[in-house]
Amino acid sequence: MQEIYLGGVGMTKFGKRSESVVDLMVEAGRNAMEDAGVEKVDAVYVGVMSPEKFSGESNIASVITDRLGLVPVPATRIETASSSGAAAFDEAIYASASGYFDKVLAIAGEKMTGVSTVRASKILSEVIPPQERKYGSTMPALAALVTRRYMHEYGMEEEDFAHVAVKNHYNALHHPYAHFNKEVSLEDVINSRYVSDPLKLYDCAPISDGAASILLTREKSQVMLKGLGHGSDYVALSDRDSLTSFASTRAAAEMAYKMAGIGPEDISFAELHDAFTPFEIIGSEDVGFFPRGRGWIAAAEGITARDGRFPINPSGGLKARGHPVGASGLAQIVEAVWQLRGEAEDRQIPRDMRYALTQSIGGFATNNMVIILENTK
Amino acid sequence: MQEIYLGGVGMTKFGKRSESVVDLMVEAGRNAMEDAGVEKVDAVYVGVMSPEKFSGESNIASVITDRLGLVPVPATRIETASSSGAAAFDEAIYASASGYFDKVLAIAGEKMTGVSTVRASKILSEVIPPQERKYGSTMPALAALVTRRYMHEYGMEEEDFAHVAVKNHYNALHHPYAHFNKEVSLEDVINSRYVSDPLKLYDCAPISDGAASILLTREKSQVMLKGLGHGSDYVALSDRDSLTSFASTRAAAEMAYKMAGIGPEDISFAELHDAFTPFEIIGSEDVGFFPRGRGWIAAAEGITARDGRFPINPSGGLKARGHPVGASGLAQIVEAVWQLRGEAEDRQIPRDMRYALTQSIGGFATNNMVIILENTK
Repeated sequence: MQEIYLGGVGMTKFGKRSESVVDLMVEAGRNAMEDAGVEKVDAVYVGVMSPEKFSGESNIASVITDRLGLVPVPATRIETASSSGAAAFDEAIYASASGYFDKVLAIAGEKMTGVSTVRASKILSEVIPPQERKYGSTMPALAALVTRRYMHEYGMEEEDFAHVAVKNHYNALHHPYAHFNKEVSLEDVINSRYVSDPLKLYDCAPISDGAASILLTREKSQVMLKGLGHGSDYVALSDRDSLTSFASTRAAAEMAYKMAGIGPEDISFAELHDAFTPFEIIGSEDVGFFPRGRGWIAAAEGITARDGRFPINPSGGLKARGHPVGASGLAQIVEAVWQLRGEAEDRQIPRDMRYALTQSIGGFATNNMVIILENTK
Repeated sequence: MQEIYLGGVGMTKFGKRSESVVDLMVEAGRNAMEDAGVEKVDAVYVGVMSPEKFSGESNIASVITDRLGLVPVPATRIETASSSGAAAFDEAIYASASGYFDKVLAIAGEKMTGVSTVRASKILSEVIPPQERKYGSTMPALAALVTRRYMHEYGMEEEDFAHVAVKNHYNALHHPYAHFNKEVSLEDVINSRYVSDPLKLYDCAPISDGAASILLTREKSQVMLKGLGHGSDYVALSDRDSLTSFASTRAAAEMAYKMAGIGPEDISFAELHDAFTPFEIIGSEDVGFFPRGRGWIAAAEGITARDGRFPINPSGGLKARGHPVGASGLAQIVEAVWQLRGEAEDRQIPRDMRYALTQSIGGFATNNMVIILENTK
């Protein structure tokens, strides 16, 4: 397989932003190109979930490519719901590995705060199939169902997953691009109001605006793609064998490890999709870091802390860095690059690291990606 | 470059359909898999412009992959406005050529008649940038502007481009999947009501529902990908050098010919994007079949008729086969395969053919693709 390098990365600050989704993606794209030291690229991939509904934007890949001054290169928009950023990365990799293009720019973003929170929640919940949506299912409601089942099967209690929120807010404390730079205590999380029992406000990632970008190249650079996997699952929860593990993550991880020729024990740290705090725990099991039903113990015992044995979400994750849905999958990879290069400043994991893994969830875990990067230095 | 074959193709009937966009794409996907004789694929690409706005569908790549019984393979939605079907084909090619996947299924479709014609026109016109949309620009209005300028520069009259509609309706007369199986005379076209002067009703492709699909494989089969190109352009017409030629088509054609190692003179026939009849004429010049300003003469003289020296749109084109926006770019390639295989029944071009070319327009020609296929028999 063709070797592909992550030659440049960039982000915008996440949070409530006044700029448009196009402005944010253009800013991130420029940052990645500047970081790579390139002024021209051969193709542009744009990952975004619903600029049509959040912003009334159409034909967005053309608009961004035009704004970046990159006409007449190919411009393509990629969408897999909340994993659109990781999907744009995948397509940029295939385009580069195919031999058709050398330098490929992946940009991902979302502008969510332009509509009301109620409206945003409705847009997000449209990924749930009609047969389950008609009973009033929303994303937090289904996540609560999954969490309740996990608690029942494995003995986890509400305080246990609250540790994830505390850790991730702590990690993002000095992150210049994070939505939240604010510590929260275990009591803050536990005493926050219920969104959908047993999930409380501080268990849920915020509605955010923001964008991220990566410039891929076949030219040698410090961080290289090592493995890539993508799996799908039945859209209806009622069609699945298990509620407490996501088959799409497991399929993606299997593909990524096989390509990389390594296993979970070789990974130095990970960025996992913690749209809801228990999802970080389930993700850490699905990618093989911990046995089924044991991820919560690792989280509660501090093993996944930045200075723990197995750091997860040093960026603060979706929970604290923020979750502009289309952007998150790519922002995870940006953080992985910064950590591998030793450029993560106050949130740098204090050790030498060779492999990083990211995992992104699309829809209600119907379309998930796992990416493995290698530090070649 | 890895050799990729078009192992199977399929379509649904285009027109006003009662089925959902998902139903239509599933039907087309099954037809392509059956045509290829495969039951499993390694990845699914779904091209569609706006299922969110036309149908309230979200997370559509997962939904279709689930419905096709293809879980857990990767599922990715691709969007480049009205060229989304060609873009899905491109991405399926890159995915296959990259070495990551062997059999890749591309499906493209749109369901447009579920909303009113006024609403559909509004959705389509959202690809026009705000600075031009605020003056009341719609797609037919901009196409009329382009046509008027072409008439001014090259001496074409309304009767001249009416020939394109007559030819394309004639070609689709017995096409089992076409929206219209109805001949129209030159008088019918000329006497139809103005949509946007000088464009009349019969100069405009209809609003349609439908889907198309292609199964790509590295296994040898009769029709092979020979060239592929994709170009973008400034979104605002006011930023462009010319109104009467689309730079995005020219960039795409240059890339496709270069890869194929052939020129326009080697092409046996073409499927061009005739959303408005003058666009077929402009397209035939932009891909190099005729000199600038001479395409209208070729159309008026019958050179582009099915039994002419250079057949264009033997399928009936977007004009008569119909134009479910997301589907059209892929449906063109399906027709090219049928023609190269000699399976086009009553509309078969009566000669041996080696190379076919298709050209798809995304947005107002901001994101266009050109594809060249080879008959290896």
